[in-house]
Amino acid sequence: MKPMPAAHDSIRAVLWQGDHLLLLDQRVLPAHERYLDCRGSAEVAQAITDLVVRGAPAIGIAAAWGVVLAAQRDPATLGAALAQLRAARPTAVNLMWALDRMRGVIDAARASAAPELVERLTREAQAIQHEDLAANRRMGELGAALIAPGSGVLTHCNTGSLATAGYGTALGVIRAGVAGGRIARVYAGETRPWLQGARLTMWELVRDGIPATLIADSAAAHLMQTGAVQWVIVGADRIAANGDTANKIGTYSLALAARHHGVRFMVVAPASTVDLASASGADIEIELRDPAELLGYAGTRTVVEGAQAWNPVFDVTPHTLIDAIVSERGVVEQPDAARMAACFGAA
Amino acid sequence: MKPMPAAHDSIRAVLWQGDHLLLLDQRVLPAHERYLDCRGSAEVAQAITDLVVRGAPAIGIAAAWGVVLAAQRDPATLGAALAQLRAARPTAVNLMWALDRMRGVIDAARASAAPELVERLTREAQAIQHEDLAANRRMGELGAALIAPGSGVLTHCNTGSLATAGYGTALGVIRAGVAGGRIARVYAGETRPWLQGARLTMWELVRDGIPATLIADSAAAHLMQTGAVQWVIVGADRIAANGDTANKIGTYSLALAARHHGVRFMVVAPASTVDLASASGADIEIELRDPAELLGYAGTRTVVEGAQAWNPVFDVTPHTLIDAIVSERGVVEQPDAARMAACFGAA
Repeated sequence: MKPMPAAHDSIRAVLWQGDHLLLLDQRVLPAHERYLDCRGSAEVAQAITDLVVRGAPAIGIAAAWGVVLAAQRDPATLGAALAQLRAARPTAVNLMWALDRMRGVIDAARASAAPELVERLTREAQAIQHEDLAANRRMGELGAALIAPGSGVLTHCNTGSLATAGYGTALGVIRAGVAGGRIARVYAGETRPWLQGARLTMWELVRDGIPATLIADSAAAHLMQTGAVQWVIVGADRIAANGDTANKIGTYSLALAARHHGVRFMVVAPASTVDLASASGADIEIELRDPAELLGYAGTRTVVEGAQAWNPVFDVTPHTLIDAIVSERGVVEQPDAARMAACFGAA
Repeated sequence: MKPMPAAHDSIRAVLWQGDHLLLLDQRVLPAHERYLDCRGSAEVAQAITDLVVRGAPAIGIAAAWGVVLAAQRDPATLGAALAQLRAARPTAVNLMWALDRMRGVIDAARASAAPELVERLTREAQAIQHEDLAANRRMGELGAALIAPGSGVLTHCNTGSLATAGYGTALGVIRAGVAGGRIARVYAGETRPWLQGARLTMWELVRDGIPATLIADSAAAHLMQTGAVQWVIVGADRIAANGDTANKIGTYSLALAARHHGVRFMVVAPASTVDLASASGADIEIELRDPAELLGYAGTRTVVEGAQAWNPVFDVTPHTLIDAIVSERGVVEQPDAARMAACFGAA
């Protein structure tokens, strides 16, 4: 008898349908489970910009399928499609990485007829998606092995099935840690302003039956003071060559509090998140989004008219505050440029 | 010719009307400027619990007027009224302090006829309110003097006219600092879950024409990393004998980030906030509020059904992370038990 599939196995953020792409609309979760139907690469690029699909690995996968859509429609548009998809969001390097892989196929198939090109691109997009799921399973094992039985962990933003091809990066480690009895309780920061933790991570955790508690982002340091948390486990949008890590705004604050309280700090991301062209975090572009995301909620204006807001959606955590970077290639403990090069320097 | 009154002079959170009390309903600001009409002490206690009025000094003032309402109705109910008001919220010691002052008047006027008791209680409540405004003006001068010209400052929650008899504690220092050219820009954390910073502080700052920028609470450490902030300036709900300070959840996290970045940290609160009966922060009760405050917003459920949340609304910042505690009695720099006793040990 086959075991019951875990609830997360039914969650797919990016679903290829042979001639069109379905994206689970993360703007309206958990109230509505609704898929957006994308028939062209411009729609995919817009969906990435609008956060219909988000999470560094998931936007790389969605963009790869966007290239397939462009090739199906007209291979002559591929150059423009690649450029448009690349510009959809600036910080997550997985987007650029996935598009570079697709471009490599286009370059290699230059002499091919259109149907063959489409087929090759389809295979590449499928490979990117399948490899991501496999990487997540592997990272889950590697990361969970670092955690002592019965631990409490804190995570930030959403790094689960919704942010990847499935299972998740940091949330994959958490899933593996819960399954193996290493994690007793998960705390999730709500992740203002877009509430990825409150809306998405809590949805995934509750569906999986994992003991989970939502907190305000600002309560994390107080939570650590109580001793309830042994590890902070987060994903990444870009990791520089020295281990400095760009991730959702608030991650840096968690890392500072973790260090102060002797709580360990783990970054979980596939090797495609590592950007050796960025020597340190100072080289990483931080996306600023519309201040309106802070000025109201669900159509209700919360802040007085005329108010200004500053809305950086990522920050950089220096490698000196990170205890372990977990990828499918292994664990880099106390990361620095030399240890990162030893793990990621050669493909 | 009299100078134009500043916009904040028109904001009054607590307005005595001779026989009833008006409380500016802070639950619906800034969308609506609506006063709640309180005719009895039970209504005042409920309004404090429900956050119609909030901010440590303001709830002390409101409670004092609640005692006057009880005396007007029936002096025999005063004991029960005092107990009910005292239980309205647990953390802010100003509430207990104001009620102790009112109880002192009741005890001293034991032999008096009811009209005289009501008159004496009215004078005491007026004194508490007037003294608070005067203390805020004095703290404004003292705190602003610590700030170098052209500084950027970050504040948290709301400590302005809405939280006090007028002008504000931390926001009073900010007002004085802006007026004197010491503060060039104010950053306000939105203060989840109740959004006091987004809804209330931004409303006060925009009305006063003060250059102000709203940020997500979790963006504070990243903001400090940019060098934009020289001081964090916050209020307090209770200050222990050693200087440990209970204030709105998130304050401790800001103090950790400030120390890491060499940003200075100022607590501004009237002497009535100091609780010499609490030796350290460990003795301070931290209010836990309804998890529902984190599970939805403005009637919209944001988190999946079945989710748990943890909602402590205060935290304790250890005195070792505080550079200055400013009260109307003076400035205690690098506070510890000895320096606190020297300033607050004798009334």
